[in-house]
Amino acid sequence: MQSVYLRNAWYLAAWANELKPGEPFARTLLDEPVMMYRTGDGTPVALEDRCCHRSLPLSLGKIEGDRIRCGYHGLLFDAAGKCVQVPGQSLVPPGSGVRRYPAVERWRAIWLWMGEAAAADPALIPNLYWLDHPQWGAGTGQMQIKCGYQLIVDNVLDLTHLSYVHPRTFGTLAIAESPARYERVGDQVRITRWILDSKPPGVMARNRAMDGNIDRRQLITFLPPSVVTIEGWFGPTVPNRDERAEPEGGFGICNINALTPVSATETLHLFAEAQSYAPRDDAATDKLFREVYDTFLEDIEVLQAQQRALLERPNRPMIDINADAGGLEARRIMARLTAADTQRTAA
Amino acid sequence: MQSVYLRNAWYLAAWANELKPGEPFARTLLDEPVMMYRTGDGTPVALEDRCCHRSLPLSLGKIEGDRIRCGYHGLLFDAAGKCVQVPGQSLVPPGSGVRRYPAVERWRAIWLWMGEAAAADPALIPNLYWLDHPQWGAGTGQMQIKCGYQLIVDNVLDLTHLSYVHPRTFGTLAIAESPARYERVGDQVRITRWILDSKPPGVMARNRAMDGNIDRRQLITFLPPSVVTIEGWFGPTVPNRDERAEPEGGFGICNINALTPVSATETLHLFAEAQSYAPRDDAATDKLFREVYDTFLEDIEVLQAQQRALLERPNRPMIDINADAGGLEARRIMARLTAADTQRTAA
Amino acid sequence: MQSVYLRNAWYLAAWANELKPGEPFARTLLDEPVMMYRTGDGTPVALEDRCCHRSLPLSLGKIEGDRIRCGYHGLLFDAAGKCVQVPGQSLVPPGSGVRRYPAVERWRAIWLWMGEAAAADPALIPNLYWLDHPQWGAGTGQMQIKCGYQLIVDNVLDLTHLSYVHPRTFGTLAIAESPARYERVGDQVRITRWILDSKPPGVMARNRAMDGNIDRRQLITFLPPSVVTIEGWFGPTVPNRDERAEPEGGFGICNINALTPVSATETLHLFAEAQSYAPRDDAATDKLFREVYDTFLEDIEVLQAQQRALLERPNRPMIDINADAGGLEARRIMARLTAADTQRTAA
Repeated sequence: MQSVYLRNAWYLAAWANELKPGEPFARTLLDEPVMMYRTGDGTPVALEDRCCHRSLPLSLGKIEGDRIRCGYHGLLFDAAGKCVQVPGQSLVPPGSGVRRYPAVERWRAIWLWMGEAAAADPALIPNLYWLDHPQWGAGTGQMQIKCGYQLIVDNVLDLTHLSYVHPRTFGTLAIAESPARYERVGDQVRITRWILDSKPPGVMARNRAMDGNIDRRQLITFLPPSVVTIEGWFGPTVPNRDERAEPEGGFGICNINALTPVSATETLHLFAEAQSYAPRDDAATDKLFREVYDTFLEDIEVLQAQQRALLERPNRPMIDINADAGGLEARRIMARLTAADTQRTAA
Repeated sequence: MQSVYLRNAWYLAAWANELKPGEPFARTLLDEPVMMYRTGDGTPVALEDRCCHRSLPLSLGKIEGDRIRCGYHGLLFDAAGKCVQVPGQSLVPPGSGVRRYPAVERWRAIWLWMGEAAAADPALIPNLYWLDHPQWGAGTGQMQIKCGYQLIVDNVLDLTHLSYVHPRTFGTLAIAESPARYERVGDQVRITRWILDSKPPGVMARNRAMDGNIDRRQLITFLPPSVVTIEGWFGPTVPNRDERAEPEGGFGICNINALTPVSATETLHLFAEAQSYAPRDDAATDKLFREVYDTFLEDIEVLQAQQRALLERPNRPMIDINADAGGLEARRIMARLTAADTQRTAA
Repeated sequence: MQSVYLRNAWYLAAWANELKPGEPFARTLLDEPVMMYRTGDGTPVALEDRCCHRSLPLSLGKIEGDRIRCGYHGLLFDAAGKCVQVPGQSLVPPGSGVRRYPAVERWRAIWLWMGEAAAADPALIPNLYWLDHPQWGAGTGQMQIKCGYQLIVDNVLDLTHLSYVHPRTFGTLAIAESPARYERVGDQVRITRWILDSKPPGVMARNRAMDGNIDRRQLITFLPPSVVTIEGWFGPTVPNRDERAEPEGGFGICNINALTPVSATETLHLFAEAQSYAPRDDAATDKLFREVYDTFLEDIEVLQAQQRALLERPNRPMIDINADAGGLEARRIMARLTAADTQRTAA
């Protein structure tokens, strides 16, 4: 099954702490095997994970200073992907080398540009300030999920599923009954939902000892191609609340999702959970992150069953409901961006 | 690998005791995912196992009285497959729903009609009276086998294999040496074999303390599309026995097989074993059933190896032998019925 | 994925001790399922592993003297593959039978001819005298590897990989830096490399207590279609050694590899390791063999990763280096022989 991806874009490839000094690290992004490592000063490098000689993944090789040596016949490559040594001969065949992917470390994450290197502008990396801001404490993790990334984008853009998939953690029945409004902002989609004067979800009862009714806001942002942030606000109930105004008091959490395609039917879901109620309390951060992790384990079951059903019966019709509005807008944006990207690559 | 099935027919989908109150139950029949549940009064319901919204299997949802609620976004379906509620909106998109399959509980089994609902006539369900007749005690079970259902039909229609595959339970060498005669009765095939003045098989030595030589009759009936009953009679040796007359004395057992296609290369083999020598003695029924279960475990190895060989080398020629006569007749009947069924569906 | 094989050739199908009296033995060679057994006097027989009646592998049957009986319906086949009995009927359908493969036991191995039986000349079996020569002690073993056999041929024809894949056993960095020369001798390729005045590899330090610098010679012979012998010589350092002359003193080891294709992407690697320093000392033979076994476990990782990379990205270009010369010559020879063989089979 082939997929068309938006290639000229930054993808979150790994959390910074996954890329350890001296250890080659392999991941597949957009059907392309990539190997990453850190040079002597810690700079991240990303290369095609395949020796240009006999195709062994370079990630099975050894790092030598700023370079990587293939583990089969010992060819040596520099951080630009150029082959600089072939054991047993003095000349390196001209032009020998492997593809380099522009790599940037930002927001405690490694970002790769999967399109034309010349177009890689770090300013285009999404702003995920919660990850290293002193007023926030954030935990990170990842799961490999056997479904296309669009299904997970749909999932996080329509949080009515919290009511049915996650009743123990973030879901309450009131969510599905509370309407959301969405707006397109440039190539982004923003979805806002207020759940008013309503019981707090289990996760807040446990982590913040919330008891009586609260007001809650979900602010979801889709940043193409595949980052979704979910800012949650929890605070006191206010009669006749002005939903357009920023809420006061209370506290925020932020769930960050990078849904990096591995293939048409597999996705690396890198996620983080930040909280503002105790930013320096690692135990509080960790406790909240555990609940998020368990919550995504529930999603995996749903997402993989959905993907299997779609693969087995690809031509069955589907209906749309009101809650799909934001997700459908995101799909329209991606279709437009991907078509333009494909044309540009072809030209 | 695609398969053409006889769709306008009843298929045994589950034993009645597999379908428990309050628990959604999933099975794939004829390449179609089906979910079953019981309404409040116990009536079996069978629906397409796929929400019409985003394709999650409904079997991952929750039963609410007579209805099933999808486990993803909470759409609610009634027992006719009609969508009756979409959380968060007052209107249900007109025509929303999933396919319903006519379902009937009979002979301690759930039968589904996989073709046009209007043609589903319960009178066409095969008569398997042994399963709840006071003069018979019957145990039931099932196995999922990685081979096409036709291979299992072939298997049970040609019992000479008992001599080579099941020498410890039902087989004796005399079976393969005893000729069978077959006749077509409408769309059914009946195969009769007498094994005369011969050692009893191991299963009868153990369960009925048979010792000296006996007469034995196998009466096999193929009921399209995929039910096969094997009535066994064991009794005293009679010189010059009239093979056309019903035998007297002795006792009977009956092996019932429903070979419900899952896909072109996978079959749900639902089977039962009934005995008339101690109908109310559950321990006797269970002891005989265990032997049948072990016997079918031997068949699985053969059938799956045969299927693998056929898939790996599909174009190798095969020869037919005398013992294949009944099975070949069954295949001719099925080819005729399936062609007519496909034409009717297309029209 | 289909493959074109050189069919008119002898392939090593099993070590002789794998084929035990009374036990049918199954292997797939060149995409063809084969079953082997020994007749009453121990002669090896190889037949198509598929009954001509309903395709059950004959390897699931039972040996009766010089014959094999199918485990499904009892058809009996002689050592020429002819069906000689069908239970329950007096006549065997004329011409019934399965394909026989010419089989020869030589050099402690069973060799099968996979092409036209009439062309099977045992004189064409490669000379592997080390396996049963009194001046050599040899251990044998096998591994099934998920890669095409050509990748393993490449592997053993270019021993520079010892420096990077096997530094603990047979590799030293000096190997990759020592040039090899190759010559074509008829349809064979011979590759010679001297590693002079250099540290012994770990395996020799452990098995022969070698300590100071040594001279070492590798003499690799490719015998089409897929046997490769690696004769190793280890001895004292000699100044200005004449590399064309046979070395004196020291001792030899010989690594024998039969790379029998199972399919386009799977190979049965049958290998042996012989040593001449203590031919009657089974413990010494076994100790050396263990090291070879561990060494090939390292190769498996490399070879399977390489095959996966080639399957995932089949059209990526590859560069050749000096060390590939012998392997490329072997591929040219095989392309020529296979084309001639395919033409001859078609004619």
